[in-house]
Amino acid sequence: MNNVKNTDPTIIVIFGSSGDLAKRKLFPAFQNLFLDGRMPEKFQIIALGRAEKSDEEFHSYVIENLNSFSRKAALSNEETQKFISHITYLRHDIDKEESYQELDSKLNSIDRTFGARANRLFYLSIAPSFIATISGNMKKLRLAANAKQDRIIIEKPFGYDKSSAIDLNEMLSQTFKEEQIYRIDHYLGKETVQNILAFRFGNSMFEPLWSRNFIDFVQITVAEEVGVEERGGFYEGVGALKDMIQNHLLQILCMTAMEAPASLGADDIRNRKADVLKSIRRIKPDEVNHYTVRGQYDEGFIKDKPVPSYRNDKGIAPDSNTETYVAMKIYLDNWRWQGVPFYLRTGKRMQEKQSSIIIQFKPVPHSSFSYDNQGMTPNRLIINIQPAMDIKLQFMTKKPGLSLSLQPAEMIFDYFQCSTMSPEAYETLLSDALAGDPTLFMRWDQVEQAWDAIDTIQEVWKNNAPTDFPNYKAGSWGPEAADELLARQGHAWVANTQNIVK
Amino acid sequence: MNNVKNTDPTIIVIFGSSGDLAKRKLFPAFQNLFLDGRMPEKFQIIALGRAEKSDEEFHSYVIENLNSFSRKAALSNEETQKFISHITYLRHDIDKEESYQELDSKLNSIDRTFGARANRLFYLSIAPSFIATISGNMKKLRLAANAKQDRIIIEKPFGYDKSSAIDLNEMLSQTFKEEQIYRIDHYLGKETVQNILAFRFGNSMFEPLWSRNFIDFVQITVAEEVGVEERGGFYEGVGALKDMIQNHLLQILCMTAMEAPASLGADDIRNRKADVLKSIRRIKPDEVNHYTVRGQYDEGFIKDKPVPSYRNDKGIAPDSNTETYVAMKIYLDNWRWQGVPFYLRTGKRMQEKQSSIIIQFKPVPHSSFSYDNQGMTPNRLIINIQPAMDIKLQFMTKKPGLSLSLQPAEMIFDYFQCSTMSPEAYETLLSDALAGDPTLFMRWDQVEQAWDAIDTIQEVWKNNAPTDFPNYKAGSWGPEAADELLARQGHAWVANTQNIVK
Repeated sequence: MNNVKNTDPTIIVIFGSSGDLAKRKLFPAFQNLFLDGRMPEKFQIIALGRAEKSDEEFHSYVIENLNSFSRKAALSNEETQKFISHITYLRHDIDKEESYQELDSKLNSIDRTFGARANRLFYLSIAPSFIATISGNMKKLRLAANAKQDRIIIEKPFGYDKSSAIDLNEMLSQTFKEEQIYRIDHYLGKETVQNILAFRFGNSMFEPLWSRNFIDFVQITVAEEVGVEERGGFYEGVGALKDMIQNHLLQILCMTAMEAPASLGADDIRNRKADVLKSIRRIKPDEVNHYTVRGQYDEGFIKDKPVPSYRNDKGIAPDSNTETYVAMKIYLDNWRWQGVPFYLRTGKRMQEKQSSIIIQFKPVPHSSFSYDNQGMTPNRLIINIQPAMDIKLQFMTKKPGLSLSLQPAEMIFDYFQCSTMSPEAYETLLSDALAGDPTLFMRWDQVEQAWDAIDTIQEVWKNNAPTDFPNYKAGSWGPEAADELLARQGHAWVANTQNIVK
Repeated sequence: MNNVKNTDPTIIVIFGSSGDLAKRKLFPAFQNLFLDGRMPEKFQIIALGRAEKSDEEFHSYVIENLNSFSRKAALSNEETQKFISHITYLRHDIDKEESYQELDSKLNSIDRTFGARANRLFYLSIAPSFIATISGNMKKLRLAANAKQDRIIIEKPFGYDKSSAIDLNEMLSQTFKEEQIYRIDHYLGKETVQNILAFRFGNSMFEPLWSRNFIDFVQITVAEEVGVEERGGFYEGVGALKDMIQNHLLQILCMTAMEAPASLGADDIRNRKADVLKSIRRIKPDEVNHYTVRGQYDEGFIKDKPVPSYRNDKGIAPDSNTETYVAMKIYLDNWRWQGVPFYLRTGKRMQEKQSSIIIQFKPVPHSSFSYDNQGMTPNRLIINIQPAMDIKLQFMTKKPGLSLSLQPAEMIFDYFQCSTMSPEAYETLLSDALAGDPTLFMRWDQVEQAWDAIDTIQEVWKNNAPTDFPNYKAGSWGPEAADELLARQGHAWVANTQNIVK
C-alpha cells in the first residue's frame, strides 16, 4: 500500500524456512523485491530450520526453488548470487533456549556489521501450536524488544474460534505491542483485491449506486478446483468456514461494503473495515440452518478427470464431517446495506477456480421494452479477483435491427491490459511489512469480530453432525441447498463462467 | 421502432426519384427491406422524374445504383428482378396538373390490381421550394385524402427559421393532418442513436447518475471531415447552425437529456423530447457571443491531403460569411439539468469524422490516492454514434504495482460485436413510415421549438458579420474561441480520438 520503501538496515528472520510457504512464496517475493530495488541497501535474511545445513547447502536449495517459483526466474547468475549472499542459514530448535541465544548473537553480530541496530522482521511460517513457545523465548531474550523497529508476521489461522483467538492474542501481547503484530491474509495483497478500494473511491460514478437503494444483492465466491492435496491432516480439524470464510471472504466483504475511509492511512482503512465486521448481523443458534449451508464433496469429475470424494482423500477420516463447502447469507445492519443480502460461498472441488464479487443491481423500475428470449438481465458489476483479473459491466443494449428490442451486453476491463508483470501478493505484503505499513494486515479487532461473526455457526455445526454428507459432486457448484438459500428470496447464484455476449 | 411490419398493400411514390438521395439511400433501403421480408406482400413503387424514361431504362439505372450503394449488393439476378418488378417509372412535371392526374390514374389502376385501396406513402425527395406546389396539387386531386392510410415524408430543412417553418407547416396542414406528416431526420434512424434510449431506460444503474447531482457537463460532437462537396450552392444559404444544430444535434440532445417516457409509444417519447427543447434556456441577443462560437474553415490538411478554404470551395462566394462550424453552450432549465452545461459542436473539415456524446461526471468529492503524471481523470461515459459505434466507460483503477496509485482505464462495449449487419438509418425509418409509426420522426412542436431555440442566434449572426472568418484551419478541431467557451467554466473539450489506455 505504501509508496515509500524501507531504507533502514533490516534483518528478516524466517521461522520455518524449509517449509512450503518459504519455498514457494517468501524467498521468491524477497528476490523480486530485491531485483526491483525495493529492499533496503543493508538487509540480511536469517533462515531458521531444524536440520543441520551449511549456508552453501541452503543457498542451492533456495536457488533451485527460485527457478521453479519466482516470476523473475530468468536471472543471471550474478544477480542470483547477489541476492543469495544476503541469506544466512541457522540451525534452530524451537523448544531450546540455546537456539534463541544463538539467534540473538547472530542478530547482534549482523547489527555490528551494519553499524546500527537493524529493524527486525520475524516471519512465523510455522504451525500455530509453536507460536507460544517462540513468543515466550523471544520475550525472554528481548529479540523484538524495540516496538518501533521490530515486527512479527503471523499466518492464519489466528486461533480456531473467538475464545482461542483472544487467548492467543493475550499471549502475544505479553511480548509484542499490537502495532508490532502483522496478521497476514495473502488475499489482501492481491492486486485485484486492492483495486476494489481504488475502483470504489477513485471514481465518482460508482459510489452513488453503492447502497441498498440500487443494489439487489452481492455475491462473493471463492471457489477452488483442488481438494485438500497434502493438507488433509490440517484441513480435517479446520474446514471451509474457518479456513476461508473467517478470513478471505469476510475481508473481501469488508472491502466491498466499507464506508469511504477518512484517508488511506492504515487505521482509517482498518477502522472502516472493522465497522463492517461489527455490522454483520449476529444470528441465533436456531437461525443457523436458515442462513447457512455446509457441504462436503463426493467423488466426481474435475475437467473430465475423475477425483475421489473428500472422505477418500489422503489424511481424511472415512466418516469425516468436516465441511469443504460453505454458502451463507449475511446481512449488514447499517444504513447503507440494510436489507441487502450478501451471499458468500466457498468450496473445494468446484467446477472452476474462481474468486469474484458480483454486484447485482435492482431491476429497472419500469420498462416497456421488448426482449429476446434471454429476457431482461439485471445490471451487474462483476469483479474477478482470480484467476481472471477483470471488471465486467453487464447491461442491456438495443438489439441491432428494426425493432426496439433489448439484449444483454457487457463491457470488460482486463486489469492486465495495463501490465503483464504485477507483483505477487506476498511481495506487496512483505514490502509493506518492511516499511512498517500495516494497512493490508488484520488488526486484532478485525480478527476478533470475524470470529464473533461465525462462532455461533461453528458451535451449532459442531453439535449437530450433518446427515447428508457428502452432498455435492466434485466438479459441481456445491449442494442444492445452496441454490435454495437464494431461491427463497427470488435470487440465484450468478454464473460467472462465460461472457454473456455471444 | 416498431416490431410489426406493415402488411397492407402499399404504394410508395417517390418525388425526385432520379436524385442523389433516392439513388444512394431510398432504393437500397427498400431493396433491403424487401429482402428481409419487411415489405408488404403487395407493394408498388412509383418513381417520379422529369425525364422521359421507359420502365426498363429506369430499372437498369436502379440496378446499377443498387450494386454501388446497397449493403446487400450481392444479389442473385432472380432476387433483383423480383424487387425491380415492383418499380414503375412515371414522367412527372411538378408544375403541371396533368402530371398529378396521371399519377392519380396510376394510383387507382394499381389499387384495382391489388383489389383494395392501398396505403400511400409519398416521399418528397425534392428541394423545399417545390413542397407548396406538390402539396397544393395533391390536395386538389385528393391523392392523400385518407388520413389513416396516406403519409408524406419530408426531408429537412423544414423552413429556414421559426417563422418560415410555421408558414410551411400551415401550408402543409391544408392538405395533410399532423399524423400524416413524417418529418425525417436520418440521425434518429441510426442504431447507435436509438440505443441511447435502450441504454438509459433498459438499465437501472445509469439513470440514478443521470442528473445535475453527478454529471459535470455533457459534450455532443458531430464532426465531419468533408467540406461542402457538391452542395456549395445549397450550403451557402444555410450554414452549420441550421444544417446541423437545429436538427441532428438538438435531437441527440433530446435523447440524452429527456425524462423517462411513460411508454415507448410515439407520442410519449415525442412529448418528453419536446419537453427538452422547451427547457432550452432562451438567450438574449446580447448573450449570443457568450454562449456561441461560429467558425469557417481556412485551407489546411485533412489526413495529410491539402484542402482549400471554404471561400475557395466550389459554389462558395469568395467573401462568404456562412459558418461551417458552431460551438455552443446550452442550459436546460429544468429540475434534472439545472446548471449542467451541454456543449454542442459541429463542423466541416474537422480533424476526424466523429459523432459522439460524452457524459463527464463530477470529480470525486475527496481523494487521498496518489496519481501518476496523467493526473486524475474524471469518469466519463462516451457514446460513439459514428463511425465508431461503441460505448466506453472511463474510470480510475489501481496502477499495478506495490503502491496504491491510480491510473485511468476504460471499458468498451462495441455495438457491432453483436451483429455486423445492422439496418441503415433509412431502412429503419422507411419501415416505420410504412407501418405508420412516427416515433422516430419529428412532430411539429419539436421542429418549432428547435427553431425557437436558435432563432436569436441566427438573427444576431445575420446582423453582425463575423470579423475573423476564416478562423480555423481545415483538419483542426475548430476555432480557438471554442476552447475558451469551455475554459471559462474550467472545462475542456474531451478528445475522443484514441483509447486512453496504452
